[in-house]
Amino acid sequence: MDITSIKDPSFLKGMTVEELQKTADEIRSFLIDSVSRTGGHLSSNLGVVELTIALHYVFDTPNDRVFFDVGHQCYTHKILTGRADRFATLRKYQGLSGFQKRHESPYDCFEAGHSSTSLSAALGMAVARDLKHEHYEIVPVIGDGALLSGMSMEALNQIGYEKRKVIIIFNDNAMSISGNVGALSRSLARLRNSRGYNNLKGDVKKALRNRKYGEAVINGIHNFKDTIKKTVIDSGIFKELNLEYYGPVDGHNLKDLIRVMEVAKENDEPCVIHVVTKKGKGYLPAENDNSGFWHGVGPFNKETGKLLRNTPEGFASTSAIAAGKIEELMGEDQRITALTPAMRQGSALNSIFAHYPDRSFDCGIAEEHAMTFAAGIALNGCRPFLSIYSTFLQRAYDQLNHDVCRMDLPVVLGIDRAGLVGADGETHHGIYDIGMLRPLPNLILAEGKDAQEMRDLLDLAFSQPHPFALRYPRCDLPLPENNEKHPIEVGKWKILGKNDTEVKATILAFGPDCLKIAELVAANDLPYRVVNCRFLKPFDTELLKELLNEGKPLFVYEPEMCCGGFGEGVAAFAAEQGKGELVDVSAIPDRYVPQGSVAQLLEELQLDLPSFMARIEKVLHDQ
Amino acid sequence: MDITSIKDPSFLKGMTVEELQKTADEIRSFLIDSVSRTGGHLSSNLGVVELTIALHYVFDTPNDRVFFDVGHQCYTHKILTGRADRFATLRKYQGLSGFQKRHESPYDCFEAGHSSTSLSAALGMAVARDLKHEHYEIVPVIGDGALLSGMSMEALNQIGYEKRKVIIIFNDNAMSISGNVGALSRSLARLRNSRGYNNLKGDVKKALRNRKYGEAVINGIHNFKDTIKKTVIDSGIFKELNLEYYGPVDGHNLKDLIRVMEVAKENDEPCVIHVVTKKGKGYLPAENDNSGFWHGVGPFNKETGKLLRNTPEGFASTSAIAAGKIEELMGEDQRITALTPAMRQGSALNSIFAHYPDRSFDCGIAEEHAMTFAAGIALNGCRPFLSIYSTFLQRAYDQLNHDVCRMDLPVVLGIDRAGLVGADGETHHGIYDIGMLRPLPNLILAEGKDAQEMRDLLDLAFSQPHPFALRYPRCDLPLPENNEKHPIEVGKWKILGKNDTEVKATILAFGPDCLKIAELVAANDLPYRVVNCRFLKPFDTELLKELLNEGKPLFVYEPEMCCGGFGEGVAAFAAEQGKGELVDVSAIPDRYVPQGSVAQLLEELQLDLPSFMARIEKVLHDQ
Repeated sequence: MDITSIKDPSFLKGMTVEELQKTADEIRSFLIDSVSRTGGHLSSNLGVVELTIALHYVFDTPNDRVFFDVGHQCYTHKILTGRADRFATLRKYQGLSGFQKRHESPYDCFEAGHSSTSLSAALGMAVARDLKHEHYEIVPVIGDGALLSGMSMEALNQIGYEKRKVIIIFNDNAMSISGNVGALSRSLARLRNSRGYNNLKGDVKKALRNRKYGEAVINGIHNFKDTIKKTVIDSGIFKELNLEYYGPVDGHNLKDLIRVMEVAKENDEPCVIHVVTKKGKGYLPAENDNSGFWHGVGPFNKETGKLLRNTPEGFASTSAIAAGKIEELMGEDQRITALTPAMRQGSALNSIFAHYPDRSFDCGIAEEHAMTFAAGIALNGCRPFLSIYSTFLQRAYDQLNHDVCRMDLPVVLGIDRAGLVGADGETHHGIYDIGMLRPLPNLILAEGKDAQEMRDLLDLAFSQPHPFALRYPRCDLPLPENNEKHPIEVGKWKILGKNDTEVKATILAFGPDCLKIAELVAANDLPYRVVNCRFLKPFDTELLKELLNEGKPLFVYEPEMCCGGFGEGVAAFAAEQGKGELVDVSAIPDRYVPQGSVAQLLEELQLDLPSFMARIEKVLHDQ
Repeated sequence: MDITSIKDPSFLKGMTVEELQKTADEIRSFLIDSVSRTGGHLSSNLGVVELTIALHYVFDTPNDRVFFDVGHQCYTHKILTGRADRFATLRKYQGLSGFQKRHESPYDCFEAGHSSTSLSAALGMAVARDLKHEHYEIVPVIGDGALLSGMSMEALNQIGYEKRKVIIIFNDNAMSISGNVGALSRSLARLRNSRGYNNLKGDVKKALRNRKYGEAVINGIHNFKDTIKKTVIDSGIFKELNLEYYGPVDGHNLKDLIRVMEVAKENDEPCVIHVVTKKGKGYLPAENDNSGFWHGVGPFNKETGKLLRNTPEGFASTSAIAAGKIEELMGEDQRITALTPAMRQGSALNSIFAHYPDRSFDCGIAEEHAMTFAAGIALNGCRPFLSIYSTFLQRAYDQLNHDVCRMDLPVVLGIDRAGLVGADGETHHGIYDIGMLRPLPNLILAEGKDAQEMRDLLDLAFSQPHPFALRYPRCDLPLPENNEKHPIEVGKWKILGKNDTEVKATILAFGPDCLKIAELVAANDLPYRVVNCRFLKPFDTELLKELLNEGKPLFVYEPEMCCGGFGEGVAAFAAEQGKGELVDVSAIPDRYVPQGSVAQLLEELQLDLPSFMARIEKVLHDQ
């Protein structure tokens, strides 16, 4: 069939299991083909093709609420709900989102991006449904990595207590993003491999009796096998959580999936259906991947499995630059440990984990814990480096404030993916961390303009006794030519290029942006001074006072949230000095920023460099 | 013995169990007497007297690291480590902290305040200990409420995986602060009442053989009873977590406590000792309390159990004012639900829970989950009110940002204990929420000057479609005389008193403070205009522009963190208008604020009203 002609999932209802499987195969081909051209989340989507078909077959969507934790595994859901024709625009500016979005379709009833929110949302939906005396099913789909996060455990704890009807689809691929960790993960593995079972034949017949679309299943019932199990002997953690448990069931067997869902539907209790899937199913390079490489990828050649674009020679990602420096430092200082909340692959930590297994810790999707774990390490005299995406740092705000900054502990944070990130959109832009971190006493917050400065700032971070956060944007930077060190003093900004007192204005910027601006200014011989504000906290108040006293305008370039940001801090400082009128801030306005290439987003926000330069000219002209 | 003469816990080592028990009884008397005079956390401290004695008896503190989750149950620990003589200053300005503080004693190896951080810290400490090849025990003590929080589950998950030696003392009083909730809580109750056991006699003998201070225990070994159990049959959640489990053990039986700790010490595996204690033990009113009233109290008459200070006639706490209004609204609108993360008593929600049990939800210590739970309720058409302390809102920053504000859902937050809170100190001041919330798009953030305005703002909150947060400080306010409504428009500030154009300056303030300032200005006939900035977001930009155009100084009074705060926002807005020089902000500087009465703290911070008025005079004079 033509996948792009699908309008809604109703066509599934009359299909036989064989026809459903054929559809699954076609969707899988479409996915591999489409993602090889656009890039996107591949492994997780290939894993849930049959599962998603079974969900739309059994449940009456969108009246029944089927939704995905995190949401990047919703591609088959998007295809079945009539969005295949937009897959060429996947994750592009004004294109199809890589996550569920309510504005895209009535079939998208929830939006996520960060992990482990689906169960809390499901319970909330169930409460509202029951209060309004409405009747529909609520069916969150959640992976093993997300299920073991603390927030999910909190939700399960209350779901098992409230006893409102929610059907939790536990999509267990034993992988999370790059391999699961933790004791509960082992406990789930025991369950996955358990032999306990309860023949559900009778229940299934009862469940199917009155269903018009149950024919395909009823026809197959004499072949019923023991692959659907209700582990009455020991359902492990789910027993402790007071939840009905069905499983494990083969996530690629449509017949079994449909049967177990029908049974769960008939039951009035909240339950967990344990579905075992294979990540990357149907695409060998992804099936064989243990590193998490195929979790999210750029465009690739589907025959060879090779990426179409690679980091250019002599360049490295900022993640790799930071990780490389940390690995060097770990060689010199036995006290340094490396921590990540489930981002080994994303933050380029694989080499550290390989070379220093005793000092490397993957905490799983557990940012809260990871931060206080780092505090504990620092308390007892070692030096933790916690690598964390800016957007996920939002999960550990309290722990960073109270357990790290308040005790003034030498924890070093590597804030990866700071600033606009591009294709992942609203839920992943790292544009809140400056506003979040500036109010925290004792913390030093820095960003380097290039690889050399990133390395120098990390040297500084480990040579001083306070909490230190180095943020770096998602981009490739040229590698330094040598291993030289250029010591930096805390809180000292630096003027880029010559410090011409004849300038008409000063530009305050930070990170690779300030270098680009300096290059632009030099290339066009513009009458501006550019300051590399490499410390976002503390400010270089000495230099800032000098600049204010000079009486010339200060233009802040900050492609980050305006409220509480660096520019606002500069404006407030200037106001304090009685020079507030000199400051002009260009920052992201008070709204959420969608997906798109960083260049497209900057243009939309009028924060591309030409717009910024035009802004300066206009202000200077209007004076 | 004279409790105040205790210098360190070494005196315990030579004592018999009977002598230890006598010491426990004396400490308990001291605690009741002392807390009745100063106020403080009572129930939890009375519950752990024997437990704390056993810990200091068995472990070699401070070399072994014994510490308490949250920390407010550390009073016996403080007494045993030589601080009884300072108990008259408990929780007072420059006095003894109600929590563990490293600067107070080398026996305080960790600091907390918020729940569920101890296990993550313990694992971090263990990692550092092992890396440095040091040898000591790490012994976190954690209550049942804190253990069931997501962050603890994340830590346990990794502890059971890493298998580093940590002895977790699970202090199970089946109460949390005001009764436990959740499925796991029932699972723990099953464990608490379990009959499975494993006679530890042999292990105990081995454990004690080489211990010089084991005499008291060895003497009693022939009386060994089966009260110490190692539930090999089913240790529930702890089995799933791959942790050795000892228990349940009677937390008021010193002999049993000492024995089980000795055994745990000999074992190389991380383990959990399940200790069952009675909250309030030894003081009947506290023992019989189910509401959480005796969790933390003001000074009381220890004979009658009556508080010495009560809310004056005609006044109510801001918590009660908010909860009262919500209860009224719940009577009018069936869609309104009330949520709290374990603060039913603290946030005065008991009446709501009694009258609307179907629409009231105690989520336990689970702020992350509670926030997204609220989002789910709003998504499906009901209207959640989430009551949450400002300081605990820090735990749900990401969920508020992504799940509530990004989806622009009509969740109403009651931010209780906003601003300086007093005696609980550094970890409980609600001075970060303004900086935390201003960068969040779609959110409306308000504070009322009095009970009437709080009520009117709550009417507004439920009549509009966006996320709305009403913050209120910890204080009593006069109740309104009637039930009148005074509609308020979103984002409109209000001039208090007459709008005299002859004024020399304008004061911008919010909450009850702005009323106090207006009264002061009126009483002294000062030439200032006072504006009630009841919306901290969005600003009343129309009025603000008018004021700036007037060209007279604007003084912001903000007893909250300066960075990212309201005043910084005003300064940035003024700078944007080319009038930055007009703004002068008085706010809390960039450092942590200790305990003390709010009045004392304001004075220390030079934010008391006389200081603020003097500041205005000085600035005006210097111009």
